Amino acid sequence: MAARAGGVQTLDWTGERLELIDQRALPQRVEYVACTSAAETAQAIRDMVVRGAPAIGCAAAYGIALEARRLVAASDAAREDGLRRAFATLRASRPTAVNLFWALDRMQAALAALAGRRSADFAAALLAEAQAIAAEDVECNRAMGRRGAALVPDGARIMTHCNAGALATAGYGTALGVVRAARDAGKRVSVIANETRPFLQGARLTAWEMVEERIAVTLVTDNMAGHLMQTNKVDLVVVGADRIAANGDVANKIGTYILAVLAARHGLPFYVAAPRSTIDLAVDSGAAIPIEERAAAEVTGFRGERWAPEGVAVANPAFDVTPAALVTALITERGIVPAPSAAGLRALFE
Amino acid sequence: MAARAGGVQTLDWTGERLELIDQRALPQRVEYVACTSAAETAQAIRDMVVRGAPAIGCAAAYGIALEARRLVAASDAAREDGLRRAFATLRASRPTAVNLFWALDRMQAALAALAGRRSADFAAALLAEAQAIAAEDVECNRAMGRRGAALVPDGARIMTHCNAGALATAGYGTALGVVRAARDAGKRVSVIANETRPFLQGARLTAWEMVEERIAVTLVTDNMAGHLMQTNKVDLVVVGADRIAANGDVANKIGTYILAVLAARHGLPFYVAAPRSTIDLAVDSGAAIPIEERAAAEVTGFRGERWAPEGVAVANPAFDVTPAALVTALITERGIVPAPSAAGLRALFE
Repeated sequence: MAARAGGVQTLDWTGERLELIDQRALPQRVEYVACTSAAETAQAIRDMVVRGAPAIGCAAAYGIALEARRLVAASDAAREDGLRRAFATLRASRPTAVNLFWALDRMQAALAALAGRRSADFAAALLAEAQAIAAEDVECNRAMGRRGAALVPDGARIMTHCNAGALATAGYGTALGVVRAARDAGKRVSVIANETRPFLQGARLTAWEMVEERIAVTLVTDNMAGHLMQTNKVDLVVVGADRIAANGDVANKIGTYILAVLAARHGLPFYVAAPRSTIDLAVDSGAAIPIEERAAAEVTGFRGERWAPEGVAVANPAFDVTPAALVTALITERGIVPAPSAAGLRALFE
Repeated sequence: MAARAGGVQTLDWTGERLELIDQRALPQRVEYVACTSAAETAQAIRDMVVRGAPAIGCAAAYGIALEARRLVAASDAAREDGLRRAFATLRASRPTAVNLFWALDRMQAALAALAGRRSADFAAALLAEAQAIAAEDVECNRAMGRRGAALVPDGARIMTHCNAGALATAGYGTALGVVRAARDAGKRVSVIANETRPFLQGARLTAWEMVEERIAVTLVTDNMAGHLMQTNKVDLVVVGADRIAANGDVANKIGTYILAVLAARHGLPFYVAAPRSTIDLAVDSGAAIPIEERAAAEVTGFRGERWAPEGVAVANPAFDVTPAALVTALITERGIVPAPSAAGLRALFE
């Protein structure tokens, strides 16, 4: 169960390929999946080898860089065509997290700036842009963590959902970045990790990250959140986000909405930690955010074990939408937005 | 995956022993665990070979009958002593569902009425009492189903949690009895089954019962309930109960409270279907109901598969308490109690 030197490495650029820690196998097996093309990267995103909105964005950016590298000896026309396909393939990999589209837009802008340059320049410049996106993601998370830590009382028992940690980003994490920063600021904190069916990001990834960090963590099933709040075992909730609409509605891992409803009922703060790249000002409200429906097999069992009977229908929406009114504050690298509104979100970009 | 002739048989008295369908193995394997003593029956209850409040009560009653049978050749003193131990062992098997204690109290009363009789009479009379408890349970469920069906609109999409079906009772089911009765009354109904981690009663047992009954059923993970209500895919919620306090507070499988909170937010009816034997007038409110904490291994994986990392702490409360104020109506064999209150519950026993 050893991670690479320097701790968890979600995305690793080896000099000639992208290596992704295989998040399907964690924590039992620490394995890496190598990607050498945009198509392989898109497949890894679709299959959830890599997941988490910021990490998906970084992976997609590297996918474009890989493709430029593959096309270094191609004609200008072939390169142009190949990169156009690469963007299309990566854009189609997953629909909900907007960081994917944000990162691809940024790569597209970098590409546009290269008009008239040699093929080798394309490969180098697009790789540099992908590396910048990843490096900035870590910096964003550290800034977000410092800001968010101010909201965390000493002794806080922090409930989180899914994994918004180092594994969901290029490093450090969004929601778990807030936890890490609070701990680093000398606060005693503990985490309650909802297991987060069906992919079990909480049980496998958040629990693992916290154990490795030596931050106290208690694993529960998703249906225990209400009871824990009712019996005064939770002080605040902090989650990540996959896309935030212009009005402050938050799409995040399925089950997040339930936690927001429960937190409101129990008078607990409900925080969303996300970089500005997660905010989609082009989408008015959560109702317009596409919610991915994933395969039935994720729900009827896990890994090799199937437990549901044959003949059962399945619904598997991967995300839900939390109305802005249920969000106590949005934590970003640029500042905290209490009671997020369209005006508050716009101000982050001014 | 064939059940016995006559459909699902949760508890089967063979003439000399109690056979319990093994609810840990369903639906992949239909196997029976034989009990020949109170201790074996208590073990089966503890291990969740048999589960569901009414089924646990019936099993415990048979456990006493089995013990009387074992002691048929014993001296009066040895029988008295053996039965006293049997009651104690069964009472200690699980703490939350009150039907267990209700059934044992009833067996104790039957035992008291036998003072001065021959050992053979004890065995016969206690077996007859256990069989009566089981037979009455099925009758209760059918009566509850008929009453509850009146609350179900044609075309209703019914969300349920855990398994409050034939497998949770001596037959027919409480919440699923309402579903069966609505279908038998000619209504088109469909079921949304929450998988109900950690034991997956919804995914394994409710889904199986509904597939076998040819009632349309959609399986979801527990954290999807909010999204489904938010997107208008649920018309009502009906669940069973493990213990109902005198004020109408309902202890039921962990996660039930969340569904009640969500149903209230979305203006959906939230029904609890339970026989009067689930009502505990000796307990003033839900706060006084003991909530069983089960083993960590249930949460860190399922069957042979472990997915959580070593070193993680676990909470595993098996039940939660839904305040009476969130219950639209209680459905019992004696009548429907809208907005359950102490007066409404007392009236059921008058």
